[in-house]
Amino acid sequence: MSGRLAIAVDLGGTNIHAALVDRDGRIVAADKQRTPVAGGPDAVLGRIASIADHLRAHAREIGAEVLGVGLGIPGLVDAPAGRSVFSPNLFWRDVPVLEPIAAALRLPVRMDNDVRCATLGEFHFGAGRGLENFVCITLGTGIGSGIVVGGRLYRGSHQSAGEIGHVRVVPDGPPCNCGRTGCLEAVASATAVARMAGDRLAAGAGGLLPEYAAAGASSGSALDAALVARAALAGDAVAREILAEAGTYLGMAIATYADLVDPSVFIVGGGLSLAGELVLEPARRASARHAMPGIAERIRIAPAVTGDSAGMLGAAALVPGLLEAAG
Amino acid sequence: MSGRLAIAVDLGGTNIHAALVDRDGRIVAADKQRTPVAGGPDAVLGRIASIADHLRAHAREIGAEVLGVGLGIPGLVDAPAGRSVFSPNLFWRDVPVLEPIAAALRLPVRMDNDVRCATLGEFHFGAGRGLENFVCITLGTGIGSGIVVGGRLYRGSHQSAGEIGHVRVVPDGPPCNCGRTGCLEAVASATAVARMAGDRLAAGAGGLLPEYAAAGASSGSALDAALVARAALAGDAVAREILAEAGTYLGMAIATYADLVDPSVFIVGGGLSLAGELVLEPARRASARHAMPGIAERIRIAPAVTGDSAGMLGAAALVPGLLEAAG
Repeated sequence: MSGRLAIAVDLGGTNIHAALVDRDGRIVAADKQRTPVAGGPDAVLGRIASIADHLRAHAREIGAEVLGVGLGIPGLVDAPAGRSVFSPNLFWRDVPVLEPIAAALRLPVRMDNDVRCATLGEFHFGAGRGLENFVCITLGTGIGSGIVVGGRLYRGSHQSAGEIGHVRVVPDGPPCNCGRTGCLEAVASATAVARMAGDRLAAGAGGLLPEYAAAGASSGSALDAALVARAALAGDAVAREILAEAGTYLGMAIATYADLVDPSVFIVGGGLSLAGELVLEPARRASARHAMPGIAERIRIAPAVTGDSAGMLGAAALVPGLLEAAG
Repeated sequence: MSGRLAIAVDLGGTNIHAALVDRDGRIVAADKQRTPVAGGPDAVLGRIASIADHLRAHAREIGAEVLGVGLGIPGLVDAPAGRSVFSPNLFWRDVPVLEPIAAALRLPVRMDNDVRCATLGEFHFGAGRGLENFVCITLGTGIGSGIVVGGRLYRGSHQSAGEIGHVRVVPDGPPCNCGRTGCLEAVASATAVARMAGDRLAAGAGGLLPEYAAAGASSGSALDAALVARAALAGDAVAREILAEAGTYLGMAIATYADLVDPSVFIVGGGLSLAGELVLEPARRASARHAMPGIAERIRIAPAVTGDSAGMLGAAALVPGLLEAAG
C-alpha cells in the first residue's frame, strides 16, 4: 500500500474509533479504544493524539503518506473555530479541540460534529454520492441530520442546521432531553424504542421480548433498541409494532422536512436503521400521508450504505488533499 | 434617464403589475392592468407582451436600453423549462410561459414563482441584502417562502423548497385548500384571518369589527384581512387577538423551520405583514417557546422592506445583465 491517507477519528461517549482511510473510502487500518471521559478533555484529546500517532507510524511502515487528521465529535461544534461548544455525551462545554491535537501531532487537523461527518461519509462514499441536494438522518441514542445543498454541506447560520431530532411530532408527547415534550427524539430514537419496549413489558407483553429481556438481564445489559430490532427481525409482533411506531413518527418529521427543504432523498443511518425496512417502510407511508400533495408523492427514503463507518469516512473526507489526491 | 433597465412583471390572479426597473431597484415607470384570466393563457400572455412592449417604447423615449423581461407568476413553476406547472389562481396547468413572450418581444425572458421573486427582491434590494442564508416568508391569500443559501436562491430538488404554508401546526385544525387539515395556511393566512373575523362576528363580537363589516357590506366588499388589520391598528381588541393568534401559529412554524434550516433571519412580507408587530411580536414569542433551546434564542424575525414591490423587484433581478450592468 502506498499513496496518501487520512487519519480519521470518530469520537463517541463510549469509544474512540480511528482508522487510516484512503481516497476511495477504504479502511487500511483501524483502532478502537474506550473513551477516557472521566479524565476530562485533556485525557480524551491526549488519547486521540496517541492513537493517531500509532496510525501514522503504521502508515510509514507501509510506505504511505499521512495528509492530516479528520475528527468527528458528538454535540454542537464550531468547526471553523475548532471548538466543541457543547457535548452532553462527553460532558464538554466550550473545549478547544483542534489546537491541542495539531500541536501534539504537527499535522493538519479538521473537525465537525458526528452527524455532519456521517452525512459527508454518505456523500463521498455512500448513498449520497454525486447528489446535489440530500438529507442524511442518523437514528441513534439521539436523532440528528445533515444537509447537502448544491453539492456542499450546509451548516446553517449558527452551525445548527438539521436539528430534526427536536422537531415536535407529538403535541403533549413524552418529555425530551431538551426540556420540551413530543420531539422526534423522544419518540423515535433508540432510547425511545428501549423505553417503549420497557413499557410493553411492564404491561405484560408476550412474544420474544420477555425472553430477550431476561437473557439480557442475566448478562447485566438492559433491553435496548438493538434487542428490540433483533426480536423484530426474528418476527416478534410487539417488537415490530414498536419499530413501526418509531418509523411513523420519523415519517411525520420527514414530511415537514420535505415541505421545507425538498431534497432528492432522505438517507437514513445510525444504529436503529439496522432494523431496515421495519422502520423505513412505516416512515415512507407516514411521510406520504403527512406531506403536502405534490410533494408527498416524490419523497424518497433510502437506507445509508456505509453503516457504522459513515462518521469515520466523513471525518477522513474533511482532511485537505485526500479526495483530490492523485492516489 | 439613460442606462440599462429590466422590464419586470408581477402576474397575479387579479392584476398584472409591470415596471421598468434599474439596477438599484428603482422603479422608473410602472403599469397596472386587470388580468384577463377568463381569456385563458393566450389572453394573459398576450396582455403581458403588450404591456412589456409599451414599457420598451417608454424606455426608448428616455434613451434607456431594455435588457430583458423578468416575470413572477403564482403557483408551482418549472423555471428552467419556462413553464407554469400548476397555478390555481390562474386556473393554469402545464402552460408554456417563456416561449410565447420571448417570441412576441424578441427579448430575453426569465421567470420564477411569485414567492421566490419576492425573496430575490428582498435579497437584492431589501432586508436580505448581503446575507448568506435567510428565509423570506410571504403572508397573503396563501403562505409561502423562499430560501437563500450560500448567497443563492435554493429551489429544491423538485422546485418545491420552502412550502411553509403546508407545515401542519394544528393537528385536527381547520381544513386547508391542499386537502389536509391544520396547515399554517389554514390558520395564519389572510384568508384564515378573514374567516376568524367572520367567526367572531357570528359569535357576537363587539368593538370595531361589526362597524367595519357593515361599512364594507354597504360598498359590496367582505370583511377581509386588510380591514381586520386596520381595526387592530386602530386599537380594536378582538382584531388584535385574531392577528396575535395568526402570529402565534406563524411562530410555531418558524420554530420548526429554524430547527431544520437555521437561517440568519426570517423576513416576513406579503399583504398580512402590513399589520407589522401585531403579527410579528406574537410570532417571535411563539418561535422562542417552540424551537429547540440553543436555537430558540437566536431566531430573528424581521419585516420585509420592499413592500408590495418585492415580487416585481425580484423579477427584475432575474434579467441577465441588470445587476452586473455598469449603470
